[in-house]
Amino acid sequence: MKYIKKELLKRQIKHIDIKKFDSKSLIDSFEDMAFQSRNLARACEIYDKMLQDKDCTIMLCLAGSLVSAGLKKIIIDLIENNMVDVIVSTGAIVVDQDFFEGLGFNHYRGFVQADDNQLRELMIDRIYDTFIDEKDLRKCDMTAKRIADSMKPGIYSSREFINEMGKYLNKNGKNPESFVLAAYKKEFPIFCPAFSDSSAGFGLVFHQVQKKDSSIAIDSVKDFRELTKLKVKSKETGIIMIGGGVPKNFVQDTVVAADILGVDTPMHKYAIQLTVADEREGALSGSTLKEANSWGKVDSGLEQMVFGEATITFPLLASHAYHKGSWKDRKTKELNQVFPN
Amino acid sequence: MKYIKKELLKRQIKHIDIKKFDSKSLIDSFEDMAFQSRNLARACEIYDKMLQDKDCTIMLCLAGSLVSAGLKKIIIDLIENNMVDVIVSTGAIVVDQDFFEGLGFNHYRGFVQADDNQLRELMIDRIYDTFIDEKDLRKCDMTAKRIADSMKPGIYSSREFINEMGKYLNKNGKNPESFVLAAYKKEFPIFCPAFSDSSAGFGLVFHQVQKKDSSIAIDSVKDFRELTKLKVKSKETGIIMIGGGVPKNFVQDTVVAADILGVDTPMHKYAIQLTVADEREGALSGSTLKEANSWGKVDSGLEQMVFGEATITFPLLASHAYHKGSWKDRKTKELNQVFPN
Amino acid sequence: MKYIKKELLKRQIKHIDIKKFDSKSLIDSFEDMAFQSRNLARACEIYDKMLQDKDCTIMLCLAGSLVSAGLKKIIIDLIENNMVDVIVSTGAIVVDQDFFEGLGFNHYRGFVQADDNQLRELMIDRIYDTFIDEKDLRKCDMTAKRIADSMKPGIYSSREFINEMGKYLNKNGKNPESFVLAAYKKEFPIFCPAFSDSSAGFGLVFHQVQKKDSSIAIDSVKDFRELTKLKVKSKETGIIMIGGGVPKNFVQDTVVAADILGVDTPMHKYAIQLTVADEREGALSGSTLKEANSWGKVDSGLEQMVFGEATITFPLLASHAYHKGSWKDRKTKELNQVFPN
Amino acid sequence: MKYIKKELLKRQIKHIDIKKFDSKSLIDSFEDMAFQSRNLARACEIYDKMLQDKDCTIMLCLAGSLVSAGLKKIIIDLIENNMVDVIVSTGAIVVDQDFFEGLGFNHYRGFVQADDNQLRELMIDRIYDTFIDEKDLRKCDMTAKRIADSMKPGIYSSREFINEMGKYLNKNGKNPESFVLAAYKKEFPIFCPAFSDSSAGFGLVFHQVQKKDSSIAIDSVKDFRELTKLKVKSKETGIIMIGGGVPKNFVQDTVVAADILGVDTPMHKYAIQLTVADEREGALSGSTLKEANSWGKVDSGLEQMVFGEATITFPLLASHAYHKGSWKDRKTKELNQVFPN
Repeated sequence: MKYIKKELLKRQIKHIDIKKFDSKSLIDSFEDMAFQSRNLARACEIYDKMLQDKDCTIMLCLAGSLVSAGLKKIIIDLIENNMVDVIVSTGAIVVDQDFFEGLGFNHYRGFVQADDNQLRELMIDRIYDTFIDEKDLRKCDMTAKRIADSMKPGIYSSREFINEMGKYLNKNGKNPESFVLAAYKKEFPIFCPAFSDSSAGFGLVFHQVQKKDSSIAIDSVKDFRELTKLKVKSKETGIIMIGGGVPKNFVQDTVVAADILGVDTPMHKYAIQLTVADEREGALSGSTLKEANSWGKVDSGLEQMVFGEATITFPLLASHAYHKGSWKDRKTKELNQVFPN
Repeated sequence: MKYIKKELLKRQIKHIDIKKFDSKSLIDSFEDMAFQSRNLARACEIYDKMLQDKDCTIMLCLAGSLVSAGLKKIIIDLIENNMVDVIVSTGAIVVDQDFFEGLGFNHYRGFVQADDNQLRELMIDRIYDTFIDEKDLRKCDMTAKRIADSMKPGIYSSREFINEMGKYLNKNGKNPESFVLAAYKKEFPIFCPAFSDSSAGFGLVFHQVQKKDSSIAIDSVKDFRELTKLKVKSKETGIIMIGGGVPKNFVQDTVVAADILGVDTPMHKYAIQLTVADEREGALSGSTLKEANSWGKVDSGLEQMVFGEATITFPLLASHAYHKGSWKDRKTKELNQVFPN
Repeated sequence: MKYIKKELLKRQIKHIDIKKFDSKSLIDSFEDMAFQSRNLARACEIYDKMLQDKDCTIMLCLAGSLVSAGLKKIIIDLIENNMVDVIVSTGAIVVDQDFFEGLGFNHYRGFVQADDNQLRELMIDRIYDTFIDEKDLRKCDMTAKRIADSMKPGIYSSREFINEMGKYLNKNGKNPESFVLAAYKKEFPIFCPAFSDSSAGFGLVFHQVQKKDSSIAIDSVKDFRELTKLKVKSKETGIIMIGGGVPKNFVQDTVVAADILGVDTPMHKYAIQLTVADEREGALSGSTLKEANSWGKVDSGLEQMVFGEATITFPLLASHAYHKGSWKDRKTKELNQVFPN
Repeated sequence: MKYIKKELLKRQIKHIDIKKFDSKSLIDSFEDMAFQSRNLARACEIYDKMLQDKDCTIMLCLAGSLVSAGLKKIIIDLIENNMVDVIVSTGAIVVDQDFFEGLGFNHYRGFVQADDNQLRELMIDRIYDTFIDEKDLRKCDMTAKRIADSMKPGIYSSREFINEMGKYLNKNGKNPESFVLAAYKKEFPIFCPAFSDSSAGFGLVFHQVQKKDSSIAIDSVKDFRELTKLKVKSKETGIIMIGGGVPKNFVQDTVVAADILGVDTPMHKYAIQLTVADEREGALSGSTLKEANSWGKVDSGLEQMVFGEATITFPLLASHAYHKGSWKDRKTKELNQVFPN
């Protein structure tokens, strides 16, 4: 069967709205059950504790194809309602997916058993069961380049660059539903420790090749320095990890970084992770939060891992926290202001 | 820390009630997302199609510790509201868990990091994060023995024995919330193809050792014969598999069994499976439903696997079907009446 | 592309020979490493301890498509060299795969991305990346029927029926490489607690439908009774589990069954499991052997789970044990003789 | 039980030596089997094809705790025998594990069920079943700082910094078994796209805080630029991925980066991945190499994923390639020389 590009890119991914359904009664039932349902209920309980703790800065770690999968609006709601204070993410989520949609492009419902050869010929990229127009992605890459071109040459953290992306969307965006934009408006910091591993990476390489000595650089050490500063400024911290990867490690490491700088900082007091990674392979993504305790990174007692895929578990967690309403007493932290311009 | 039995067996597992929350709007959102959320939405859609199909007999396959985990009431609701017509299960779910609770015993919230040596000394059995009083289980074993003792010596299918268990509960049960009881009252057939791999197995071994030649036998061939008869009597069939194991294989095989008996029977028209098993290991539990198509067991087109743990996915699936209401036009099939006494 | 049956069924699966490679130095290195390599090394060490323990009866549990995947010769070698004393298996491995090959039929190298619709039309069955001629399987079913027809009406354990299958192969087999045959010759017991969930099930259903009152029955309670008898007769026991499922549960339960019969029997002293099942789902296949300790089934100290797929891990384990040679001092136990004819 | 630090850090992890065992006959058997054994055999075959292809630059991607698990010597052998030409890795493997051991520190055999609170008090870090002395790690952090202090202020790629680390080991190392050192000696490039997510990150943050404007920066865009240059310079490329994460994505992206720079570069012709990540979660680590084909990153035909944990599969793969010997005709590429000093 021959594919027709227009037919394949027809049905857009739509983003779930946690305000429109209330998972509270479901989570309440989960509490008295077993296995992952109970684990999820406990994660909800811990998240609520974070929201109630006035001293707690909440860090959201994002890994996996979350925005292309329809979870963007959740992240926006968490930012806008002061339900999280910082984001640490993979580059793909921030640039290829959220910023990309902010530019007016879309993700489409595809199918797993696709003929990838044909897709390639049509310039359709596949993420499991989701399709993307490669041409749109190229425009996204080039927008990142143009943003870099417009910046003063120098060394930036990914946070600073992402803030520029937000500024760009604020002026030129085609779709107001973007968490990069929402963050920009609220002085909310977003970090991508492996930033060039994204659509922006393509644009930035092109930028550097063209501009040579008058180009910008993205210094991941600066990221680490800035994030550690936020950790140090916070009385207590809690982390919500969707998936594992670099964001999980990076955020946990800030405790140690602070210590090395001679600042006495408590471990992350609260920690929850939604993941399908397996502890038994010995890799970090699936490593238990108890193990992180041995490293002095995560306190024991208020930590919980939930084994399940995030498109199902994250909406349930976020809806519970939203409708429970403990965020209503939280203030916007505007943490970008911690850093000098 | 020394464990105290009473302290450990304090907080009972409670069963989730799909009538008390409505997952419809959540599932509707999942439909336009990706990965497992979309797969779950499609599974819900296929289940609803089964319920709408007047010609369809719906077979529910159960594996994993589902009742001890708080999913019992769902199964009861599915039976009482004619949302399924037959159950094929592991023995543990039927005897050690459901019948056990029907006798008035309970499962308790435990914890994963327990000291299993101490538990053993206290005669507390652990299922991941759930505790059971071994003494209660022994009483359950012995009840199975007494039921066997009271039956006419001969060869029985597991279905016949389970029906006797339902009859027993009807008279002597201490907790009316039991799907074995609900099935008994509705002439609803339940099969356990590996029946002696359960608490009943202990009782039946004791029964045979005592009664010798005047004992009963549980013939799994008779199970297969009876289940095939149900398959043959049904114009169309749909299967809902929670977990994999023997129930999955057994139900699928009825198509081939019918064929061998010379009866032309269609493949299972609808098939959904909620599982965490992995296709890549080559075992049956994780084998795809498309693979089952090569065997002529499951039709292609209306089949869907959902990768996720059942304590989260099964309530969402069942609540959707319940509140959608397509079951309201279905009749009780009373399939036990297909078999002569 | 149109499939041609002959082309698809061309390249036979061949069975790995543990005598032809020596994994000892590899396993020795694994011992000082981490994660699953070290776990596998420890499992090898425990298996060797079982082989050295004169009082230990070794039970091998088999689940998953092991013989179709090329692991048959290992099982034969384990039987012939007195490296195991009893087998508890799923029906598919014993009948559809081993007995099937003993009749002269074969499994073939296939591919995962096959068009299952076309396969069905050609009567080719697929197991992940392996193909089988459905016509051959039907002949296997009918052979099981003929064996049943030839037996005296009555109630049998699966072990007794499998012994008849071995006797049949001894006379009429076309391929001497069969562990059912090897077991028959050595009075070695094989149990399938869910026996009718196999190719034999089809034959037996047909047999019962034809023969009616003069047919045989397969009583899984008798299986349990016999296996418990073996447990009771053994001073110590060790279990090697490839995969999980019913065999894992069944063998572990014999300790409890003995207890219920009033016989004081020790827990299984040694236990190793090679599996990819996940503890976190709460199902039995992935449940830890420490959890089994809480049930009083498996002793703590000499148990080890290895997370890995059996086509890679089982050959390494078995080759290590073979070349280490501790089996050389073991005797054939001929455990079938424990049961009266 | 109270832990004693010295007792816990007693038994060192030792690195497996692929030269000391020959997996060829095992892999040959795997070829005619099924499931993951056959997949591994095919991966070996593809790797051998890469080694025979004179035009092919081989890129090794590393993620997961590979060196702490005993796989270091394999990586050294691959470098020294020209079996790979570039490495892209997570920071932990390069700095916290390999460089760390080069400084004379060790990893130790620990155990999974450890009391993490006690470990933390003793400053012992746990990776699943492995222990590390946190004090040693701190010295490693500070060594990274000293290296940074000694460098001319400016913007560096991670490759340049890692080369400095190799130079440092060459002068001051305590253990010659280090792949960072081996790479340094052979002008062999190693990239860490998320470099500050490592022990070096701690040192570099300290360095920047102290040195302020006269500090160095690690520009991940420069990494991407350099790696893309290597891709462009290579006629053909093959990638071997151990685990997933950023390295997997980064290397695959070079094809697109080249395209964006206007250079017509072929897709990666060969690709193999050893992983336990699951395709069904939709994340990149488990995404199939066929999916990467839709993105125009990996050519179809010569790609293979193997589902299995690397401590078992990587030694088998590497030993096969080593003993097969196709690397003997390959030359050292000294790819660091592609970049101006």
